[in-house]
Amino acid sequence: MSARDDLCDLTAVDLAAMIRRREVSAREVVDAHLDRIGRVNPSVNAIVTLVPERARRDAEHADAVSKRGGTVGALHGVPVAHKDLLDTAGIRTTYGSPLFARHEPDTDALIVTRMRAAGAITLGKTNVPEFGAGSQTFNPVFGPTRNPYDLTRTCGGSSGGAAVALACGMVPIADGSDTGGSLRNPAAFCNVVGLRPSPGRVPGAPGTWSPLTVGGPMARTVADAALLLSVIAGPDARHPLSIDESGAHFHFPLGRDVTGLRVAWWRGLGGVPFEPEIRRVVNESRAVFESLGCVVDEAEPDFAGIDDAFLTLRHLAFHAEYAPLARAHPELVKDTVRWEIAEAERRTSADVARALARQARLYDDVRRFFERHDYFVLPVTQVAPFDVSVPYPTVIDGTPMATYVDWMRSCWYVSFMACPAISVPGGFTADGLPVGLQIVGRHRGDWGLLQIAHAFEQATGHGKRRPPVVTSPPTGRS
Amino acid sequence: MSARDDLCDLTAVDLAAMIRRREVSAREVVDAHLDRIGRVNPSVNAIVTLVPERARRDAEHADAVSKRGGTVGALHGVPVAHKDLLDTAGIRTTYGSPLFARHEPDTDALIVTRMRAAGAITLGKTNVPEFGAGSQTFNPVFGPTRNPYDLTRTCGGSSGGAAVALACGMVPIADGSDTGGSLRNPAAFCNVVGLRPSPGRVPGAPGTWSPLTVGGPMARTVADAALLLSVIAGPDARHPLSIDESGAHFHFPLGRDVTGLRVAWWRGLGGVPFEPEIRRVVNESRAVFESLGCVVDEAEPDFAGIDDAFLTLRHLAFHAEYAPLARAHPELVKDTVRWEIAEAERRTSADVARALARQARLYDDVRRFFERHDYFVLPVTQVAPFDVSVPYPTVIDGTPMATYVDWMRSCWYVSFMACPAISVPGGFTADGLPVGLQIVGRHRGDWGLLQIAHAFEQATGHGKRRPPVVTSPPTGRS
Repeated sequence: MSARDDLCDLTAVDLAAMIRRREVSAREVVDAHLDRIGRVNPSVNAIVTLVPERARRDAEHADAVSKRGGTVGALHGVPVAHKDLLDTAGIRTTYGSPLFARHEPDTDALIVTRMRAAGAITLGKTNVPEFGAGSQTFNPVFGPTRNPYDLTRTCGGSSGGAAVALACGMVPIADGSDTGGSLRNPAAFCNVVGLRPSPGRVPGAPGTWSPLTVGGPMARTVADAALLLSVIAGPDARHPLSIDESGAHFHFPLGRDVTGLRVAWWRGLGGVPFEPEIRRVVNESRAVFESLGCVVDEAEPDFAGIDDAFLTLRHLAFHAEYAPLARAHPELVKDTVRWEIAEAERRTSADVARALARQARLYDDVRRFFERHDYFVLPVTQVAPFDVSVPYPTVIDGTPMATYVDWMRSCWYVSFMACPAISVPGGFTADGLPVGLQIVGRHRGDWGLLQIAHAFEQATGHGKRRPPVVTSPPTGRS
Repeated sequence: MSARDDLCDLTAVDLAAMIRRREVSAREVVDAHLDRIGRVNPSVNAIVTLVPERARRDAEHADAVSKRGGTVGALHGVPVAHKDLLDTAGIRTTYGSPLFARHEPDTDALIVTRMRAAGAITLGKTNVPEFGAGSQTFNPVFGPTRNPYDLTRTCGGSSGGAAVALACGMVPIADGSDTGGSLRNPAAFCNVVGLRPSPGRVPGAPGTWSPLTVGGPMARTVADAALLLSVIAGPDARHPLSIDESGAHFHFPLGRDVTGLRVAWWRGLGGVPFEPEIRRVVNESRAVFESLGCVVDEAEPDFAGIDDAFLTLRHLAFHAEYAPLARAHPELVKDTVRWEIAEAERRTSADVARALARQARLYDDVRRFFERHDYFVLPVTQVAPFDVSVPYPTVIDGTPMATYVDWMRSCWYVSFMACPAISVPGGFTADGLPVGLQIVGRHRGDWGLLQIAHAFEQATGHGKRRPPVVTSPPTGRS
């Protein structure tokens, strides 16, 4: 254990401040995190590509800049890791696919560029499911990532490596992305924070008008997620959905009086099955919002017909991205990805028209819903972390699941709302497994969402209450 | 002929100023326009629903407000007409369909609401093709609208009634909408101005993320189009593509020095057929841009593969809007609309994925194109106004057209760029028929586009050079 292992349990906000004030050097911070990774990562397999020499070099450069009084960004010297679906120039980027096992991109993805421009120091890449398909992080290149609260269980996904790296103190902040829950589900399973911002808040794929896939921040605290959002948010000419608003204000203090805010409490999402223990833990938090002075009512948007609409658009998105690859190398592409593509070929463009019409109707319903409510609260996941050897749950509370994404409806119903949504630590099951609480804000209401999530976090301290088993340091600090 | 018939040839900017200064009353202005409509409209059939009593009442109310010094909007007392695809509360709205021949909506479309809130006075509704399908304005409810420059020819469409009403001085400004050219084609055919704004500039259908269909202003001058844009632009929570920017600045003075601006001159759109006379007239304007000090080069984005991509998304949009109606009443829905719907059912969602991928690639190409150029200039239409009894051209310059929209590619290639584009009067064929010049601006560059179009208009005066045959007043003023 490094002398400065305690640095790994600090928040990004504190770390950045200490580096800025030169109370600690970027090099010390990076060394501490590399040590932590060396000690903990073998048990969980969260960081699958590590660039220690480059990270130490970058840290020394950052310290040199500080020393000569140069301008420093909001993440100056803060160690980070990038999701392995995001391109990193000169660093292996596999997308979890054997087809890209040795792939080294020439350019950074926009999120990576922005993090590095703010002074963040890249330690490596975090594990993902093959091509990000599904909320269980395993792939033929690197194998599975394990849940640090129970190594026999999954960490969720697709930003699974990121969530585990955060939970274990390998990095204080990390990026992720989310179509059907990939920022929120692993955050929930690993007792950390995952924010799915409004579409366009963090510019996504160039030229794409679809609001379904978004990039976003993950962290151990809401304020750290907000700090990272402040760096990665903001318009970009390549992305037509870009919101014309700088991200800078997301770094303002989050504290506010939430008295009188109207919280809509979930009612069951029209019959979606949940494990009883998830219901119990999440519903215990209703009293927390009431104690904060919020007005809590039971209410939900109408989700009827969303299943088919979402899946139609999801199949289409997978087809757009992976059909040529799957045609060229069917044996090297995951069965569920091939299924997505086959479904896209089976459905008609009239099906797409119906899906888009349903999406439009939901958008309008949701807009009106958020005239009567400020937030919508529901569980992040329908299940607790399950056996790491199981690709996906096939039955929930007695109900069989028809597809590999059916068990994630509590996340993708929310994706379809096109609202910002956050997963915050919501407590633990009787077995000691983390449960995520999902809060949804109005369209483009990312700032208000961070504020209420921060208030909830301050009131409960769930994220701090129980450390993961694998990071109990050998010296027995806890 | 009314004593104040001259009021009908003023610009909206001048009319609004005169009414504001009480040099003329709204009632006089409305009466003059109602008289003009009564005299001219029977020859052309541009305004298909007229509400004279309501208009006179509104005008009197506007005058009363002025008299007592009340606050007045930018269009206070200015007469307008709305496209019959736009809902108008309490005023018949047919969409050109016999199914809606007696339809009277309960609410105004957003554009109508905004125009009326700015003080505009609704005189009636302008004719459209059935459900706006195609750029030729005829339907079973009202019959065809005729070109005021040659009554045997079409006025184009789908905002055909609006273009004719403007050309004939029945209104100084009018709204329109555009998927594949519906604001630009009729403007070109009728020697007026039609602006297709950036997607989201004027909020469109609620909950829709597609950039293809946009609303926009039509007028006889660029400054009048800008005035109307200033009123109808601006964000709206119902529309997810809304650009977060007030429209107010579009009413600033348009004059600017355009010296040194880089104009990309069209090269033929990869082999799209044009009538030679259209090529000749449009290419004569190259010298105008040069004389204004612009740097003109030949350059185009790559449009390969756009045909199939655009049609796939167009079919899908028609399916979303009209499939249930067409199923319920096939005999009462236009053949081309039924064809669009059938094509949507025949194509797969994988085809849609490919179309969206092509759209994304074009967006990115166009963004880079506009790093090297400020504007792109090309003809609005591939043909001059054709026989009003022909639904659509089937051959252009010897090339047969495969579909009813093939002859409009010079417009819908531009729609697919997701850029703002304007049709300005570009001269006349040897037969005296109007030709439209199309100028395309960078993504969200509506303001710069209006400026260059204004400079071109000032330099040429094409819009004023030759009045339509039907408005030569009986007193022989011209």
